[in-house]
This record gives sequence, structure tokens and C-alpha cells, in this order.
Amino acid sequence: MSSAMKALVKRSPGPGFVLADVPVPAVGPSDVLIRVEKAGLCGTDHHIYAWDGWAQQRIKTPIVVGHEFMGTVAAVGSEVRAIRVGERVSAEGHIADLTCLLCRTGQSHICEHVEIIGVDRDGAFAEYIAIPEYNVWRLAADIPDVSAAIFDPLGNAVHTVMAAGVSVKSVVVSGAGSIGLMAIAVARAAGATAIYAIDVNPARLELAKQLGADAAFLSNDSTLVDVIRALTGGNGADVLLEMSGHGAAIDLGLQMLRNGATAALLGLPSGPVTLNLTDRVIFKGITVLGINGRRMFETWYQADALVRSGRVDPRAVITHVLPYTEFDKAFELMEKGEAVKIVLDFKGDIAKP
Amino acid sequence: MSSAMKALVKRSPGPGFVLADVPVPAVGPSDVLIRVEKAGLCGTDHHIYAWDGWAQQRIKTPIVVGHEFMGTVAAVGSEVRAIRVGERVSAEGHIADLTCLLCRTGQSHICEHVEIIGVDRDGAFAEYIAIPEYNVWRLAADIPDVSAAIFDPLGNAVHTVMAAGVSVKSVVVSGAGSIGLMAIAVARAAGATAIYAIDVNPARLELAKQLGADAAFLSNDSTLVDVIRALTGGNGADVLLEMSGHGAAIDLGLQMLRNGATAALLGLPSGPVTLNLTDRVIFKGITVLGINGRRMFETWYQADALVRSGRVDPRAVITHVLPYTEFDKAFELMEKGEAVKIVLDFKGDIAKP
Amino acid sequence: MSSAMKALVKRSPGPGFVLADVPVPAVGPSDVLIRVEKAGLCGTDHHIYAWDGWAQQRIKTPIVVGHEFMGTVAAVGSEVRAIRVGERVSAEGHIADLTCLLCRTGQSHICEHVEIIGVDRDGAFAEYIAIPEYNVWRLAADIPDVSAAIFDPLGNAVHTVMAAGVSVKSVVVSGAGSIGLMAIAVARAAGATAIYAIDVNPARLELAKQLGADAAFLSNDSTLVDVIRALTGGNGADVLLEMSGHGAAIDLGLQMLRNGATAALLGLPSGPVTLNLTDRVIFKGITVLGINGRRMFETWYQADALVRSGRVDPRAVITHVLPYTEFDKAFELMEKGEAVKIVLDFKGDIAKP
Amino acid sequence: MSSAMKALVKRSPGPGFVLADVPVPAVGPSDVLIRVEKAGLCGTDHHIYAWDGWAQQRIKTPIVVGHEFMGTVAAVGSEVRAIRVGERVSAEGHIADLTCLLCRTGQSHICEHVEIIGVDRDGAFAEYIAIPEYNVWRLAADIPDVSAAIFDPLGNAVHTVMAAGVSVKSVVVSGAGSIGLMAIAVARAAGATAIYAIDVNPARLELAKQLGADAAFLSNDSTLVDVIRALTGGNGADVLLEMSGHGAAIDLGLQMLRNGATAALLGLPSGPVTLNLTDRVIFKGITVLGINGRRMFETWYQADALVRSGRVDPRAVITHVLPYTEFDKAFELMEKGEAVKIVLDFKGDIAKP
Repeated sequence: MSSAMKALVKRSPGPGFVLADVPVPAVGPSDVLIRVEKAGLCGTDHHIYAWDGWAQQRIKTPIVVGHEFMGTVAAVGSEVRAIRVGERVSAEGHIADLTCLLCRTGQSHICEHVEIIGVDRDGAFAEYIAIPEYNVWRLAADIPDVSAAIFDPLGNAVHTVMAAGVSVKSVVVSGAGSIGLMAIAVARAAGATAIYAIDVNPARLELAKQLGADAAFLSNDSTLVDVIRALTGGNGADVLLEMSGHGAAIDLGLQMLRNGATAALLGLPSGPVTLNLTDRVIFKGITVLGINGRRMFETWYQADALVRSGRVDPRAVITHVLPYTEFDKAFELMEKGEAVKIVLDFKGDIAKP
Repeated sequence: MSSAMKALVKRSPGPGFVLADVPVPAVGPSDVLIRVEKAGLCGTDHHIYAWDGWAQQRIKTPIVVGHEFMGTVAAVGSEVRAIRVGERVSAEGHIADLTCLLCRTGQSHICEHVEIIGVDRDGAFAEYIAIPEYNVWRLAADIPDVSAAIFDPLGNAVHTVMAAGVSVKSVVVSGAGSIGLMAIAVARAAGATAIYAIDVNPARLELAKQLGADAAFLSNDSTLVDVIRALTGGNGADVLLEMSGHGAAIDLGLQMLRNGATAALLGLPSGPVTLNLTDRVIFKGITVLGINGRRMFETWYQADALVRSGRVDPRAVITHVLPYTEFDKAFELMEKGEAVKIVLDFKGDIAKP
Repeated sequence: MSSAMKALVKRSPGPGFVLADVPVPAVGPSDVLIRVEKAGLCGTDHHIYAWDGWAQQRIKTPIVVGHEFMGTVAAVGSEVRAIRVGERVSAEGHIADLTCLLCRTGQSHICEHVEIIGVDRDGAFAEYIAIPEYNVWRLAADIPDVSAAIFDPLGNAVHTVMAAGVSVKSVVVSGAGSIGLMAIAVARAAGATAIYAIDVNPARLELAKQLGADAAFLSNDSTLVDVIRALTGGNGADVLLEMSGHGAAIDLGLQMLRNGATAALLGLPSGPVTLNLTDRVIFKGITVLGINGRRMFETWYQADALVRSGRVDPRAVITHVLPYTEFDKAFELMEKGEAVKIVLDFKGDIAKP
Repeated sequence: MSSAMKALVKRSPGPGFVLADVPVPAVGPSDVLIRVEKAGLCGTDHHIYAWDGWAQQRIKTPIVVGHEFMGTVAAVGSEVRAIRVGERVSAEGHIADLTCLLCRTGQSHICEHVEIIGVDRDGAFAEYIAIPEYNVWRLAADIPDVSAAIFDPLGNAVHTVMAAGVSVKSVVVSGAGSIGLMAIAVARAAGATAIYAIDVNPARLELAKQLGADAAFLSNDSTLVDVIRALTGGNGADVLLEMSGHGAAIDLGLQMLRNGATAALLGLPSGPVTLNLTDRVIFKGITVLGINGRRMFETWYQADALVRSGRVDPRAVITHVLPYTEFDKAFELMEKGEAVKIVLDFKGDIAKP
């Protein structure tokens, strides 16, 4: 392979990405080099593209962006144990240190020293990415490329659903963005007996119902707490999956829960949140779970089982597949709210999802 | 028995209690009538005594106050199954409806229709109290009267400790009032390998160490997060038991936790709390547990096992035993911070704890 | 109502039941009298009918038999709290003492002093049954009578599935009798991503597939362990639901599990079982769960949610609905293996399931 | 360092070990070379020494034996991340493949492809051992050498206790060999409120009481089930830790449990076990846990916390520290039952435990 490659790069502070020629990454003894074929576009990518406050604080330039992807193994380091050249793979984008308490006790998804590809080190919007073998996930042949490309956000949905536990429970999903929508499909497959979706966007609510929500509601409906309570036999819901990250939605979601319920928080509030902990959490005996990333690799096995069994089809949230060269158009679609999930193609054969 | 009895009564809105003659309570078919012998004084009793904002909203007068107690069974209703006249008992003061989803699934401690003795219906600061058999707890002969009198707050401590799970874990106890202090003793007995107490009061910190804290700190120590982290191998603590109910203490306590830790909240903030949920809970993968009351009756069995095995001695927090007629003096001691736990005697033989 | 009623009675030791006139049962202060409308026929009923060794040891005659049923409340005792005359109900047939450690900690389904209706005291194959209000389960209007009549065995299936935990897991169901078949439907609804059924009867395997099994196998297939391993990515299944009660099936089922898996045992071996605990359980790190009855009343809430959401339809296992007067024919159908589940009608309007 | 070293070697099939000069092991890129200082003698070592049936089937000669040890890092491979030359360490002796489902989901202790040092590959009864960095456990300075040398069997005890969960529970420990004895100490520290030890050997029962058992009983006491039931309020014990591996002891232990209890099985029966699963497990709603090895590395962190906090002192079971050259004498002491735990010294300075 040649020593240069195409990549989407944040060259320096400020909005936008450039399509640039950069060196193919070096492959360490425990690393795997992957020829990227399809990659998913995430809200985080847009933060970096738009160069918002969070991005200005976090991102060191220059950096190759992107973290959701799949491709084919192009080379392996000398100490690689199991992965072979030619295998079709995706990868966990959180590079944990593997030596700390958390990594040594099965919780590397919350390693304090994590580095995220496309955020803290070079990422996946490129022809090649090098990543530790530990992070590589082998793909079964029956998983479509576009589905495999978004195993990362699907994994966020799976982690949230499985941490909360939805089997034979009633579930409120607050926020029907691409992860919230996948959480609905996952909750349905994982055994929820009732799913109620909430969002500000009527079109998303329609999609929520297609993906398995039993009912869907606009969040500005002032009777919503009563409605959910009525739908759940007067008790309130068993589980809240909070995917919106809005303080008011968190407060509203907690009100919809019955005493003794579980709330899993994945959505990230951009600032402090004011809550009546006494009434919303303590008196009710609520369990609140902070959810971050994907469990390595329990979440990946679960996502694999859900997709391969046909219980979940992530393609339902993919609205566009575009050549990676059209990244500016992709972000424009995102900004206009015309897309749910966009997949970029880095290989050339753009199949319809 | 005579049809009138002595009781501490909140007659009408306003500060103070009166010592009054009131009718001995009626005993329904499923009720047990108990001759009260010893009763514990709780912060809630003081709220009602002082007639603060919470009390003004919640309390309907007239009412017999008090909810922590022990005594001897004086009479039983026709449908009582197991409890017999003459048995020595305490009782769970939360009267659940026993017919709702929560009561029917082992969670009657968070029944939405709960009534609390001494708050919502006549209580235990009296010669007699009538209470459903379901709520009565039979006392083993080897449990001292004064210990039995405070099984209710001991149960709060036990519930918090056992919900969090402290076995072979490092534990921060935030707030060393009487329940926090008992939580320290319980956590030690329940298998915590390190216990760190935090309070604003140096005398309480001394007591915390006597009860089993490995170290104790003033909450205004600005290096406290670093200190706890250093004491826990650089990771942060495994468990927070939040007994203070102060917003700033909750925030501080969450900072002391390692990623993936558990925070059990028992202390009740008096107003809304502002938290950086993203950094304190979500990114860290924290589990936050709202804790209310005592599990019926798992908590009581646990408290019984802890006290009877000698692993926990609740007398360590009892600083005063007074005749019930000296209730005004008791509240004065409480207000001055000169008492930790006060037990009132309703029987006459005032033993030293 | 008249003071006599029709009932199926085991009059004295020996085979068969008699249809007899017996007194309508007395209603205690905490009891509910139910006019039985539909009742399910269980293997246990057949043991008593046939008067096998187990029945000879356990049953004291005379006794009204039967324990699976639904009907309408005809009268309530003076201390009944919530149930009203005219309500449509089923009931938990295990009468727990409600005063022991297990009953007081949410585990009354394994109360050591349990009495079972139709086994230890008069049962449900009668026009009326009296039962403590605690045991009565209110039926939603949208649950068909025949489904409601078999909530007891449906509950066995639900308890087994939920105790094991099947959400996003691969599950082997060993034994496809009526409870095994319902367990397949429940496991599917509760989120299993793969279900493999095993039985000796090809017709049952067909039914297993209709109810949601992904594949079904005869138990005498000598390659079965390899087949299940191959179907589960080379690892073995995550969960075994053992409904057969055969020692050889238990051994075989354990071999099909991956290391770290869970086996829930509901089927009752009739004698001691010889197992290689070292290889089948200890080295593999298996969790074995003994399953008995139904959790009160978590299992009932779950069964209710599964049926009312349409995720599970228990009518799929009902092959016959017969007037109760045809009980001899019903047992003959059972003995010949021509029936899966038979419902007896005690009301008169025999609807097709 | 020289290229040859002293080691205890099983040269060829048959009884005994030889003290031989063998090459210092090669150090791969991810390996750590450790100068062994102290090593524990295990029952498994004796099986190999005595060349019993199990050893004849499992062991391929020649092999350096031994798996419990501590020492100092002498060299590290090029890809080693965190461990440095000169560090004081112990190590997990189960070498997992790190690529399978179990290893990738935090369960490498039950990896199906595990290799055990001193059993499947060269072990620790030698001047040097090479082992993957993944397996190395850094020792805190305040852990004595002899304690560190037996972290492996201490870990078996910790894993068993923590898997069962003993916090505020009554616990039967069946079998008071060195691991059973450590399990008693660990259970006491981990919060058990009552511990009952059972063994065939009165001297071991004395030691059991010294280590924290509240009472200790000979296993041939025919009233034992009644005694344990009486000691536990008529209910039976909450937890069984089965360390003996005898079928009759397993049956007896299960009888001592209350309904709904947990039995953790670590002891390995040498042949099939016949159990009345119906009465002992299924009707009682027992949870049976197969326990193997130590959780990587949760168990090690727990052992570390227990020892460093002073809650557990493993030296209590060490009866002898001998120079490794006296290995024949050590096995003789073991065979005569005169030793509990023997530590071999490979460094020269034999300190008293």
C-alpha cells in the first residue's frame, strides 16, 4: 500500500474539515491497520466540524476526525493474536489504558485514561486507521456494511437499554435522535412490553412508532405525566431511557416513573441541571444510572446478536449514504434536520441501505 | 386497661407539644395494641415540634407525634395471626396499603399511599399505640430496650448501607448525624474495608472514628477530593453514603467517587439541587440510588442480625435517656447540638444506656 | 347463593375423581369467595387422578382438586381491603403463611409452610372456591377467560424465564410440555435472541417452532451438544430452561451451556439425579437456579404485561375446552398425549379458545 | 542473569519431583520475567507429586511445577506497558486466551482455553518464571512476602465468598482446609454475621474458630442440620460455601440452607455426585454457583483490600516456611496432616510468618 492516504482533517482551530493527503498511520506491534469502507456521521463530528465551545476546549489540531466505521484489515502488527489480514471488522473507538482498576475489572468503557479516536487521536474518516487489536471487532458475514458502520452508536443504545434492563417492563424513551430511535428498536427486541417515545419533532415520533414504540408524544404536551401514568396502570413507567440530555426532559422523565423505577442517562446535558432530588429520586427510591460508551465487549456481542437474529435492523435509521467527498453536504443535511443517520462511503461502491 | 392515656400531642398549628390525656386507640381486627416503653427522638419530631415550613404543610392537627419506639403487646385484634399479648415488640412506622403494585412486589417501603405514624396518623409518643400486625416486629430477648427503641433510624442506616453494597469496598459517609454514625457502624460490620467520614462538626468526627471510621474529615477541607483519592489508591471511593442532604455535600461526595461507583442518597435536600450530571454521573458511569425508609422486612432482619451478633451496638449513639415528661428539655438538648440520640422513657424505669 | 355446589372430589384413596355435591366453602374475614368459571388441567391433577406414588404420599382425602382457574367474585369477608363482589379474578394457589422470614422478605413463593389449593386444601374444580384476598389476582377486561384460567402454569413459565434472565441471550428450552411451550413464547417476548427447543415428541417440536423457537430438536439426537454449540458461535448457549425433570436431560442441557451460563430448573426429577458437578457446574462457573411456583406477585404482573401487550398468547397451548362434567374424557386425552392444555368449563358457555 | 536456573521438575511419569537445572524461560514481547522468592504448596501440587489418576491424565512431562508465588520482576518484554523491573509482584496463574467471548466480557477466569502454570505449562517452583504482563499483580509494600505467596488460594476463598455474597448473612463453611479456613476469615471480614464451620478434623475446627467461625462442628454429627437450623432462628443458613468437594457434604450442606439460599461450590468432587435435586434445590429455590479460579482481577483487588486493611491475615493458615530444597519434607508434612499451608522459600532468607 502507498504511504499516503485521503482523510477528512481538522487542520487548525475554526469551522470545517479539509479533505487532505496525510500519511497512512504507523502500525505498532499490537495494532491492526484497517482500510475504512463505511463510516457513520455523529453529532460529535458535527460539534468538531462547527467548532463549538466543547470542540474548542477538547480538540487539539491537526487531527483526522470520525469514530464510527467498518472496513477490512490491511495489515497486523507482530504481536497481534487473532485478527488476520482480510477480515471484515469494525472497532471500539474508546482506547482504554488496560492497566487501571477499571480496565482490570471489566469496566474499560469507563477507564479514566481513555482516548477516543477522532477526538483525542486520529480517527476513521480516512482511507486507513490503525487501532489496537484489543479494540477490533470481527464482523459476521451476514451483517450489512452500513449496519456495521454504525455499531458504535447502536452500541450506545444497546448499553443504555441493557444497563437499565427492559425485559417485560414499560419504558419511556426520551429523545428520538438516531441513538434514541435505535434504543426503541433495541428495547423492543430486548423484551420491553410497552415503549413510549418522547421528542420535540413529530417526524421523529412517526419513525419512533415504526421502530417499535407503542405510542409517541411531543414533549411539550403538558398532560404527559398523567398520560404515561394512565398507560401504565396508574403506576408510572418502569424504566426511563434519557437520550435527550435536556435538563427539563430529565426532570419530566423522572416524573413519569413509578416508585422504585430505573432511569438510565445517556444524553449529555451541556451545563448543570437543577433537580428536586428529594421528590424525584430519593422519596421515589429511583435508581439513576450514568451511561457512557459501550461495555467492552459485552455490548458488542449483544449488538451482534440483535442484528444477526434479525431482531434489530440499524438500517432503519440510515437516511443517507454519501461519498466521503460530500462531507460538507452531509453536515448541511444534518444541520437542516433532514437526515437521521448519514453514512459516508470511503470505498466507492455506494449501495443503497 | 383504662380508656385514657398520656400522650405528647400537637394540638393545633404552632410550636411545641402538649402532654395530654387522650383516648387509648381503638384496635381493629388486624391491629396490635402496644404499651410503649421507650421511644427515640428524631429530627422529624423536631420539625413538628418547631413547626417549620415542612411541618406546616404536612401535619394535620391534632395528632399524637413520635414514630421510633418499642414496647409490649397489650391487646390483639381478632384476625391477628402470629403476634401474642405480652410479646416485646417494635414496629415499622410506615403503614403501606398492601394492595398496590409496589406492596405486591416486595417494595412496600416505597408504597405511594404510605401513612407514617406520628406524621400522618397518631404516633408513638404515648402510653399506647395501635398498629397493623403486618408492621409489628418481634424483638429477641437479647436486644436492649434502648436499642430496640431506635430500630427505625438504625433501619434507615442499614437500608442505605445494604442497598449500596459495601462488602470489601471503600466507603465515604457524608454526614455524621445519628443515622450517619450508625451507617458507619453498620458499614464496618457489613464488610467495608475502608470508611471515611465527613461532617462539619469535629465532635461528630471523633464519634465517627469510635464507631468504625478509618479516617474522618471536616467537609470544608478544600483538599478533600484529593485526599480521598489518595487514600483509595488514586481511584476514588467505591461507595458514597449521603446522609447530609446538602446539595454541596452531594456534589462533593460524587467527586470523591471512582468511575463506576455507587452513591446512595438518604439525606433529604430541602430544595432543588444543581448538579453537573454530565461530569459527576454520566461520564463516570455512576449508579445513584434514592433511599427511602426501610425494606419490609429485609432491613429489620438485617438490623436484628447485626445487633444480636454484636457486630453493631446502636447504644453508641444514644447520649440521653429521659422521662417523656421532659420532652421540652430533650428538644432543647437537640437544638443546642448537645445530644446525638435521645430516648424518651414512657414506662418509668430509666436505665442508663 | 345455595349452600351446596358441584365439585370434582377425590373421595378416598384410589384412582379417579367423583362429581359430587359438597358445601360451598366458608368465607373467613380476609377471604374472597369466587364463582369458578374456567379451570386448567395440570399434570399434578393427573397424578392425583391416577393416584400415583406421589399422590398416595401427599394427598389427604376427601379433597376438592384443581388449582388453575378464573372466575367472578361472589362474596368477600369483612376484612377484605380491595377486592369487590363482581370482579373478574384468578388467584395464586400457593397459600403462604405470611408471617415467616421468607414471606416477610418478598419470597412467599417459597414459604416453608405453604399450602397448595387442590393438593393440601380444597381446590378449584368446583363451582366455588374460597381463598385469602392476598392470593386473589384481579383480571383486566382484555384478558380472555381461557387465558386467565391458565395464569398459574403461565406464571411457572414466566418465573423460570425471568429468574434466568433471557434478554439478548441464547436459550435452550428442554422439555416442550405446556409449560415449556409457554416458556418459549415468554422467552421470545422477554427478549431472547435465539431459542432452541428440545423434546422427545416431534409434534411438540412443531408447536415449539410456532411459539417462537428458532430451531427444535429431538433429545435423542447424539450430536445435539455439538449442534447447539455450532449455533451459538462455538460457545454454547447462555441459558438453559429445564422443564423436563429428567436427569439425563438435565445433564445434556448443562453440556449445551457455555461457561458462565445460567440453568433454571423447573422440571421435577422423580428421584435422585447423578451429575458430574465438577465438569458440568463447578469448572464451567454455571449458576443453577431452583425454580418453584410463581413470585408473589411480580410474576403475575409480568404475566399480565405479556398477555395484555399481545407479546404472549397463552391460548396457543390450549387444545381443548370441555365441560367439567367430561373430566374423565379430559384425563384420557391427556394420557393419550392428544392434548397439550385442556381447560374445563364450570360456567356453561363453552367458547372456542 | 545466567541462562540456567534451579527448578522443581516433574521429569517423567511417576511419583516425586526432581530438583534440576533448567534454562531460564524465554521472555516474549508481552511477558514479564519474575525472580521467584516465595511459593505456596497446593493440594494440586501434591496430586502431581504423588502422580495420582488426575495427574496421570492431565500432566505432560517434563514440566516445572507450582503456581502460587511472589517475587521480583527481573526483566520485561518490549511490549510490556506498566510493569517495571524491580517491582514486587505476584501473578494470576490461569493464562487465558484473551480473545474468546468469556475473556472479552470480563470472565477470563472461566476462559475455555485456559492454561494453568505448573499444570499445563512451566510453573513457579523455580528461580524464575515468565508470564504475560496481563497476569502480573503488583504488590503493595505493606503485604508480607508469605502472604503474597498465597494470594492464589486466598483468591479462591475471596472469589467464593464474594460470588455468594455474605454481607449480613449467616454462612456455613463446609471443609476447613487452607482455602476453607481463609474463606472463614474472608467471610468474617466481608460482613457475615454468623459463620459455622464444618470439618472432619477437630484441630481444623479449633483453627476455624480462631479465624472467625462463631461455632464449628464435626461433619459426622447426625444432629447437624437441626443444630444449624436452631442457630439460624429456625430457618436454616443463608449461604453455603462448599470447600470440601465431598458428595455427602454437598448434600448435607444443602439441607442446612433455608429456602431461597445460595450455595457456592468450590470443592471439586472426584466423581459424579447423586443429589435429590427436587428436594434440595428446586423446591427450596436454591441458587447454586459453580466457582472456578479467581476473577481477573476483581478478586485480586478484593484480596488486596482485605489484607492491606488488616481485615484478613493469610499468615494465620501458614504453618511452615521451608527452603525449596526441602520439598520432599514439605509433601510429607502435608500427607501426615501436620501442616495447613506450607510456603517454600526460593530466595534464601527464611523469615518466620
